[in-house]
Amino acid sequence: MRIARFSLNDKPRYAFVQQDPADGKDYLIELDGYPFGTAPVKPTGERYALDADGLRLLAPVIPSKVYGLAKNYEAHAQFMHESGHSEIAHAPEDMVIFSKPSTSVIGPDDPIVIPSYSNDMNFEPEVAVIMGRIAKNVPVEKAMDYVLGFTCVNDVTLRDLQGLDPMWTRAKGFDTSCPIGPWIQTELDWKDAKISFTLNGEDVPMASGTTANLIHSIPEQIAAISSFSTLLPGDVIMTGTPNASGHLDPGDEPIVHVAGIGSLRNVVVRG
Amino acid sequence: MRIARFSLNDKPRYAFVQQDPADGKDYLIELDGYPFGTAPVKPTGERYALDADGLRLLAPVIPSKVYGLAKNYEAHAQFMHESGHSEIAHAPEDMVIFSKPSTSVIGPDDPIVIPSYSNDMNFEPEVAVIMGRIAKNVPVEKAMDYVLGFTCVNDVTLRDLQGLDPMWTRAKGFDTSCPIGPWIQTELDWKDAKISFTLNGEDVPMASGTTANLIHSIPEQIAAISSFSTLLPGDVIMTGTPNASGHLDPGDEPIVHVAGIGSLRNVVVRG
Repeated sequence: MRIARFSLNDKPRYAFVQQDPADGKDYLIELDGYPFGTAPVKPTGERYALDADGLRLLAPVIPSKVYGLAKNYEAHAQFMHESGHSEIAHAPEDMVIFSKPSTSVIGPDDPIVIPSYSNDMNFEPEVAVIMGRIAKNVPVEKAMDYVLGFTCVNDVTLRDLQGLDPMWTRAKGFDTSCPIGPWIQTELDWKDAKISFTLNGEDVPMASGTTANLIHSIPEQIAAISSFSTLLPGDVIMTGTPNASGHLDPGDEPIVHVAGIGSLRNVVVRG
Repeated sequence: MRIARFSLNDKPRYAFVQQDPADGKDYLIELDGYPFGTAPVKPTGERYALDADGLRLLAPVIPSKVYGLAKNYEAHAQFMHESGHSEIAHAPEDMVIFSKPSTSVIGPDDPIVIPSYSNDMNFEPEVAVIMGRIAKNVPVEKAMDYVLGFTCVNDVTLRDLQGLDPMWTRAKGFDTSCPIGPWIQTELDWKDAKISFTLNGEDVPMASGTTANLIHSIPEQIAAISSFSTLLPGDVIMTGTPNASGHLDPGDEPIVHVAGIGSLRNVVVRG
């Protein structure tokens, strides 16, 4: 099942996303209510094409907070070393967990704004986990019971500020640094979800990978984070970028694609 | 004006805090509505003593996020050096900004829970700024126009995890790490607000100080943070701890006091 949030004439609402066998296209089946609560939701009977006039997809959730994992793929740790961003050649044994605030979250097609004080904004395509239930001290073997689904995320990072800000508060948490979408996919082969990335229509093969190569698995991440911080429904975990990241310039069009979920497209502008 | 949030028989509500000249005691003047919105609020006509049956003060706001400043007083930077926690003897020239999530926030008298994996939880008494308006790219000279008021905060820190977690995500962001209260004071001499701290009834003079000694002033903090992150009404900025911090054990009763605001008391328990 795919759950989307969208606005039509500036009114936000939720929908299931369903493919129509007649034309092979995805449509939004509008819902009456809030699909993350305890009350049942039902279709309103309205159906919209994704390219309907005045319709735009929104970030599928507004999380209370976003956690992320740094260097959670060996290939990315090696890339960071070889590109001169890290003195350490391998991924650290312990999880390195950082966070982004809710105000960093944007949706599909929204502009990613390069702050005036940065000259090296980078993309990091990833699989994002969307929590479905309140999670505290969840054991690894039960962690997936607390997950609602998955979406694409671009963990946008100001590479030139990472060294200056020990806590990465600006480098990873600036406004627009967390594009998520296009919707929540509740069924995904999360043990082998294939991530790919295109920039201005060109495939960037060095940025691709699969969650099969995660150092700390998704259930391990949920268990570790929930051991110190209560995860709320809608909270997001960015599971790590699989390999190379790279520079974004004004006018660029980055697209994060996860097989089985869909594509998250944004545009880059100068702030 | 002082604004409190409280619960009575488990229903949360807001109040003005007013001293009754007849007995010199503070009372809660219950409000109908939400004092942070655009709609006017008015008293319900009910008045409660702070020690009324079934009444407890809550964290005066639920922020979307909490920002904090590390080493924002020279005396604290020197304390951290002399106590062996930092190799650097002086405060850094640039602001060091970190964050805590909303789930770390607790209120007066709530338990601060030492996580099972820490053996050195520390107190850090501070003045907290509560934002009143949406703030983005606010200049220093207009920053105070965006402030609703001030409260006390204990920036509770797992000192033994700070070195292990480069981003301080666990060390500063664990559940219960952000006690705030007892209420919001809208009028405060924020250029010289005097902070003191008691532990189990004993004054800890080395933990006291005044915002007159802040390295980066409150307006400078608001300007710097709002240059990369949109501050929302209710968001909190922890302005820095003035001098020494220290260890907290199970059973301890830390009280942060700011002259002109009031006292924030909590109790420490082992998780």
